[in-house]
Amino acid sequence: MLHEALSGRRLTRLEYEHALPVLQDELLDAQFELRKSRPRAVAVIVTGIPGAGRSEVVNELLGWLDPKFVTVYGFREPNEVERERPPLWRYWRVMPPKGRIAILHAGWYQDFLGASVREPGRAPVVVRREVERIRNLERMLVADGVAVVKLHLHVGPELQRRRLRRHFADKTTRWRVTAEDHWYARHYQRVERALEHCLAVTHQPCAPWQVIDGTDREHRALEVGRALLAGIQGSLGSRPARPDLPPAAQLSRRAARVRLPATHPGARVAEEDYDRRLEELQGRLALLSRRRRFAKHSVVVVFEGMDAAGKGGAIRRITAALDARQYRVVPISAPTPEELARPYLWRFWFQLPPRGNYTIFDRSWYGRVLVERVHRLAARADWQRAYAEINEFERELTEHRTIVAKFWMSVSPAEQLARFRERDRNPLKRFKVDPQDWRNRRQWRSYQQAAREMIALTDTRHAPWVIVPSDDKRHARLAVLRALCERIESVID
Amino acid sequence: MLHEALSGRRLTRLEYEHALPVLQDELLDAQFELRKSRPRAVAVIVTGIPGAGRSEVVNELLGWLDPKFVTVYGFREPNEVERERPPLWRYWRVMPPKGRIAILHAGWYQDFLGASVREPGRAPVVVRREVERIRNLERMLVADGVAVVKLHLHVGPELQRRRLRRHFADKTTRWRVTAEDHWYARHYQRVERALEHCLAVTHQPCAPWQVIDGTDREHRALEVGRALLAGIQGSLGSRPARPDLPPAAQLSRRAARVRLPATHPGARVAEEDYDRRLEELQGRLALLSRRRRFAKHSVVVVFEGMDAAGKGGAIRRITAALDARQYRVVPISAPTPEELARPYLWRFWFQLPPRGNYTIFDRSWYGRVLVERVHRLAARADWQRAYAEINEFERELTEHRTIVAKFWMSVSPAEQLARFRERDRNPLKRFKVDPQDWRNRRQWRSYQQAAREMIALTDTRHAPWVIVPSDDKRHARLAVLRALCERIESVID
Repeated sequence: MLHEALSGRRLTRLEYEHALPVLQDELLDAQFELRKSRPRAVAVIVTGIPGAGRSEVVNELLGWLDPKFVTVYGFREPNEVERERPPLWRYWRVMPPKGRIAILHAGWYQDFLGASVREPGRAPVVVRREVERIRNLERMLVADGVAVVKLHLHVGPELQRRRLRRHFADKTTRWRVTAEDHWYARHYQRVERALEHCLAVTHQPCAPWQVIDGTDREHRALEVGRALLAGIQGSLGSRPARPDLPPAAQLSRRAARVRLPATHPGARVAEEDYDRRLEELQGRLALLSRRRRFAKHSVVVVFEGMDAAGKGGAIRRITAALDARQYRVVPISAPTPEELARPYLWRFWFQLPPRGNYTIFDRSWYGRVLVERVHRLAARADWQRAYAEINEFERELTEHRTIVAKFWMSVSPAEQLARFRERDRNPLKRFKVDPQDWRNRRQWRSYQQAAREMIALTDTRHAPWVIVPSDDKRHARLAVLRALCERIESVID
Repeated sequence: MLHEALSGRRLTRLEYEHALPVLQDELLDAQFELRKSRPRAVAVIVTGIPGAGRSEVVNELLGWLDPKFVTVYGFREPNEVERERPPLWRYWRVMPPKGRIAILHAGWYQDFLGASVREPGRAPVVVRREVERIRNLERMLVADGVAVVKLHLHVGPELQRRRLRRHFADKTTRWRVTAEDHWYARHYQRVERALEHCLAVTHQPCAPWQVIDGTDREHRALEVGRALLAGIQGSLGSRPARPDLPPAAQLSRRAARVRLPATHPGARVAEEDYDRRLEELQGRLALLSRRRRFAKHSVVVVFEGMDAAGKGGAIRRITAALDARQYRVVPISAPTPEELARPYLWRFWFQLPPRGNYTIFDRSWYGRVLVERVHRLAARADWQRAYAEINEFERELTEHRTIVAKFWMSVSPAEQLARFRERDRNPLKRFKVDPQDWRNRRQWRSYQQAAREMIALTDTRHAPWVIVPSDDKRHARLAVLRALCERIESVID
């Protein structure tokens, strides 16, 4: 039992008043370093049973730190906007940038702990997946420079009852005791068993749980402060293990099997044909997007491909079929300073569509394993772990009834050159050409290799890639529309 | 009648193909200038009756511009999160930063036009206020460097019917015609009358409406392009008139009447007394915040005052009484580049609480007329118009059942000095002292004068100031809690 393992240590007032200034001094130093020399972020999760002093502890921390760089978040039942996104979305939204500390009351443990305590009979497969999601999230955060400090405050059953009773008896503090607190106290054993199990399965070396004895106010405060100090200083937990990549030989075999043809068999699509078929496919997509079943889903469309492969043109043929209130097109370029200060998936989480809507990404999170890899903008370890992180991200989307459609627009070097030249000649397309584009072109083979490995490693059942031969623009646009319709139909029917 | 005033001009294919490249060239140049030489933002509102070609026009614009710096937004019925904020909140959220163009389908005219057409009998006082809100918003945007381009696309009744019938007859385009379109066509006269009136009352020199004849595709496209060009180049509309300030003599009389006492009559609050009264007031606030009626409101608390006036301490005494899920404390310091690229109120709109919640601002939008005025960080014209803009902002909050409580923490120069010295001596408070604070102290009289004028001009019935003598910290904290409780009670009872 958790409470039997508590240290029960107490501090005298003198010991406390001696130790506190030293600790606070170190905390302020560490917080300063956090912003200056080696910017990192800290996410502090505080959980605890009623009567163990959760809120007091958070208030104490706020009194010790420089509050300009700390934010406290509590979470209610998810609202409409949150319910329409994957469960972790609302925690991504409050992810602190480098240099800041976020203190989250329960944070991403909120739903998991609540359900585990209240509904002990949940299906093991559901619980396992929730645990996996949390573990993956924390591993990614730590790898991306966010220290995750997880504190659980605990007290034994007698002390809990005594504290609640005392608060409840005094009319000036009665408001502190909620109906939920009473329920927890009445079911102490069951609650403790459930919590103990939750802590055990979500404990991991890179984000360990620390159980804090809430018995003695002073001792508790110092323990919490020290745990936070270790988190800020980065001396808490170990580096997360890298997600496994397949062995090099196997990966290169799998990548070699990925074909990226730029032309399709058969004749080019004639203009008259094109107009009719385009209108038909747009009608099909429009009707699909108005179906009652569609309103329970949302759609994320990803376009990747070399410059001038026809991504923008294909996107405009999709949006022409949609109600303006139903989609958003998000062009992805280099991240802003605001975005660079967060884990790299942060800016994409922000753009997830509500139910019944589309978000169309003109380039995407795959930049991590394409441009950032080829031009060495990301460290090898970072882009290598991205495959697993991306698969997890897309899995969370599809688990939440978001349809994911990914297109690789495949153009040949000759056709790309012809399009660059045409753009150079046409002053009205000048914004489409960029010295960067020519530079990328010189790295053609590296990009193709990166694309093949990317497709080999992220072509999943829930989010498969569609490779679109794109030398014939008309054919490519029709192919995209058709594949998108089929993908949506396959999910909603 | 609107449609009788349409030009009816048509272009031959040849004229169009001659004119288009020139226009497109100018648009691309102007868009480039928008980012480079004199960064500004553009908000394009596109309204129109069914069959006039609203979506086609937006697609054409997107084909001409560099889409990396353009975003299109459509708006549905407000969702739960949006309904809990003032009506304009959702448009503030998508306000483009400098260098970018936002194309808004109907934008902040969405609700107004819809209601005007559907419910012709609305109370004049409601309609007048909606018009006033829109006009104030647009004036502020233009003054803050956002060009507002308002386009209304129109066609006559016969052409409208013909177009809808043709689209509806073809099974590949039938999906384009909605039930709403049919309703609009059936009620052409009534719709047109309502729209005409809406355009007339919201037309203003700094943000004029342009009615575009939708009869001829080519002519329509060029007209829209030219209107946008004028908007981007800043040659559209005039500068907005400055909001009137009272004459200087009257203002200084009113400011002189504002008293900012740092001490209160009577004895200092003793420690034993303080603890008991604090607990009582916190209990009162806690119970208030749990009342059923409270859940229909939200609370915005603003703290202003000289450095070391006790803002942070007072805030912690409030939050100690609240559920962690119920409040957010937002410390305001210098704006980030992201924030500087938007109108100055943008970052505050973002922080408005949902129903049943508090947002507590540790410094606020009043920085515009305090620090930015005293240290000349804002131009005189800009901080002078801020009084009216702030009053309008707070009025929109209170109209939407947000309770606004504003505290000026008034400390004496001597007490401030004593606190600075104590902070300097105490290494654990070192983060609280800043060379900037000493610099501000040297401007004491300018700050006091700015504060007096601020209070004289923004002490409104819906959002009154509370001046809190703060030399006695305990007294100040109790006074804040009491005033906050009273303010909330006065609104919800």
